[in-house]
Amino acid sequence: MTDSVRDLALKCKQAAVQVAELSENDKNALLRAMADELEAQADTVLAANAEDMAAAREKGIGAAMLDRLALDQGRLAGIAEALRHVASLPDPVGEVTESHASDKGFRIERVRVPLGVIGMIYEARPNVTADAAALCLKAGNGVLLRGGKEAVRSNTAIAACLRTALRNAGVDEHAVTLMQDLSREAMMQMMQLNDILDLLIPRGGEGLIRFVNENARVPVIKHYKGVCHLYVDAAADLDQALDLAIDGKTTRPAACNAIETLLVHTDIAGAFLPKVTRALAERGVELLGDARCREICPDLGAAGEADFAEEFLSLKLAIAVVDDVDAAIAHIRKYGSDHTEVIASEDESVANRFVHALRAAVVMVNTSSRFSDGGELGLGAEIGISTTRLHAYGPMGAEALTIERFVLRGSGQVRHPESRSKAA
Amino acid sequence: MTDSVRDLALKCKQAAVQVAELSENDKNALLRAMADELEAQADTVLAANAEDMAAAREKGIGAAMLDRLALDQGRLAGIAEALRHVASLPDPVGEVTESHASDKGFRIERVRVPLGVIGMIYEARPNVTADAAALCLKAGNGVLLRGGKEAVRSNTAIAACLRTALRNAGVDEHAVTLMQDLSREAMMQMMQLNDILDLLIPRGGEGLIRFVNENARVPVIKHYKGVCHLYVDAAADLDQALDLAIDGKTTRPAACNAIETLLVHTDIAGAFLPKVTRALAERGVELLGDARCREICPDLGAAGEADFAEEFLSLKLAIAVVDDVDAAIAHIRKYGSDHTEVIASEDESVANRFVHALRAAVVMVNTSSRFSDGGELGLGAEIGISTTRLHAYGPMGAEALTIERFVLRGSGQVRHPESRSKAA
Repeated sequence: MTDSVRDLALKCKQAAVQVAELSENDKNALLRAMADELEAQADTVLAANAEDMAAAREKGIGAAMLDRLALDQGRLAGIAEALRHVASLPDPVGEVTESHASDKGFRIERVRVPLGVIGMIYEARPNVTADAAALCLKAGNGVLLRGGKEAVRSNTAIAACLRTALRNAGVDEHAVTLMQDLSREAMMQMMQLNDILDLLIPRGGEGLIRFVNENARVPVIKHYKGVCHLYVDAAADLDQALDLAIDGKTTRPAACNAIETLLVHTDIAGAFLPKVTRALAERGVELLGDARCREICPDLGAAGEADFAEEFLSLKLAIAVVDDVDAAIAHIRKYGSDHTEVIASEDESVANRFVHALRAAVVMVNTSSRFSDGGELGLGAEIGISTTRLHAYGPMGAEALTIERFVLRGSGQVRHPESRSKAA
Repeated sequence: MTDSVRDLALKCKQAAVQVAELSENDKNALLRAMADELEAQADTVLAANAEDMAAAREKGIGAAMLDRLALDQGRLAGIAEALRHVASLPDPVGEVTESHASDKGFRIERVRVPLGVIGMIYEARPNVTADAAALCLKAGNGVLLRGGKEAVRSNTAIAACLRTALRNAGVDEHAVTLMQDLSREAMMQMMQLNDILDLLIPRGGEGLIRFVNENARVPVIKHYKGVCHLYVDAAADLDQALDLAIDGKTTRPAACNAIETLLVHTDIAGAFLPKVTRALAERGVELLGDARCREICPDLGAAGEADFAEEFLSLKLAIAVVDDVDAAIAHIRKYGSDHTEVIASEDESVANRFVHALRAAVVMVNTSSRFSDGGELGLGAEIGISTTRLHAYGPMGAEALTIERFVLRGSGQVRHPESRSKAA
């Protein structure tokens, strides 16, 4: 007999009460013990992963997915290292973010507390099992994990290591709970548990995110697509802009913080476009231009409406020529996904206009979009990049898995002193 | 022809772009002009309210609801004063909450920006129309308002004043949009607009909150019921505890921060219960006790399971005797609504145990639950009290209607310097 989804989640919630009360030292020791256990059980985890890989190959799954699924000694060491790194980060729980005395005489503090229980829905990467569990535990939460079917044996082996470390530390192992029933019905049930789960984080392709967003009753923070733009202004340093385009597009095209569209100010289009298109083409990038771009670079393919809305996730880039920063802003407002937007400009007032007008989670001036990452932005680690404009926006670290609440300490203050039992 | 709900919301979103860029001074002048306009149009607003009142009386609506609906010169002056007060509060938009230099040489800032467009769904109180619009505008947002049917004439008259002030200031009046179609279908349409609305705040009775929570695709922050407890510990100052019970229960029993249940440590039950029950009964409170309570106070009615889960919103209180702080915590975990919980105890370690073990939005030591209010807690004003453990928890002021995002300023930094066009 297996537990129902609801029973599993309830057990996780019960365990989360214990996790919320763990000290910083206990949590960090636990995370390090998890890393040790993963290394000790490396053979078991890699054997499970080999089975997942064989089954995936048999199903004819594509090379990109196979790469996301694959583990080896090096990747496993990386997962263990990531756990130890999370242990080394500051503990957000208990942080007093504000403290003042009320004019009535009591003290008011805002204090960070864990969210409670976090549901994670993800796809093929088995490292997410350990990464997400680590950040959730660091922030004092329980976590209910629903990974991809392809990775079920790998995820189960990794979760077993994490739970061994929990048991050895005397913590209820249900704090990290991996769902074994990977049916769509079970996922639907999970998404309805708004009396148990405090937050649902879906990470994966557009289809998965949309499905969760349309069906969940638990609050959702989306990690949606990144249709990121680089706008090269008339006042840009064109050498810098060239580097930003190359770094943004070619260093990891499958990442959500890669650029998908290059917008070029008409005044420098004649000077910049031949250079940038040559440099990108040399690096294997397929280039699509709008009509104005193709007047300057007639060899480019034609970029249509749909190309400007697409997250290519590959060595493909759409290019448009725009009249000025306002036209660039209008284009981004139409096609952007609120992820990361970059302007290359030495004109501070133009740069500020761009920063203020756009509502993306991360807006950059003269910096590569590829820095839109929790580690690079000083969060230490990330559970994902939120494109939901609520609670957390942009890269989310451990702090984003907590909430501030109010704690008051007084000496019998009442709101209506005239109501006191001894009042006249 | 009236606009569809979607068209209305789109117009509001368009206007919100303009509101987001208003300066602090412009926003404050606008809020003051709204107050002036409300005072100038007092006769019109009061006449509209008189029509709402007459229609409500004709429908046989109860006294409590009629009181919430009623406006007079004094209440209208209060609404105008609240608008001026919001104008006097600090502007959260643009606040830099963090700033540091990356080791790569660019600067990383976290900056507060408006959420975008906020949907408010509320019931009979017409003052919410002005209060909610004021806080949303202060935080740079557009607001789509859906008030109760009973108050439609009052709300329309108030919204007309707010929009006159917007027009006079040259701001698109759709920034404050009051829905005229108050059908359930229109509300359902509003709740599905997750590509337009960034947040939905329902304020009202349990039925409304549940309906919104179960049907919305827009992220919801609930302002749910307050089943607040006062736990009187063995180490309590019993005179203080008596005052906390009287203030918590009797000074405004219909408020969500009033106490609904009194928990008393068994060691002091014999000394405290006769006193507190007499004082409360003298003030007209109906008292229900569990079996252990009634051993000491046999005249009390019997409190059942359902009484401990109910938000009475009236002069009614359930009482239980508990063995210790852990039993109190267990009771509150079972019946509480994560709103406000109070312990009366002079024992700091017991008080800390209570504070840490409970996940309520506001937890208090020796302080009246009635201070759980945005104004009292230093927020200046509140749009409500969140019982959703995400984004904002507890009283929500203007800051809670904004979100922090990342702004990076560099000088051409790239993540992979070896990819530079001029790299070796």
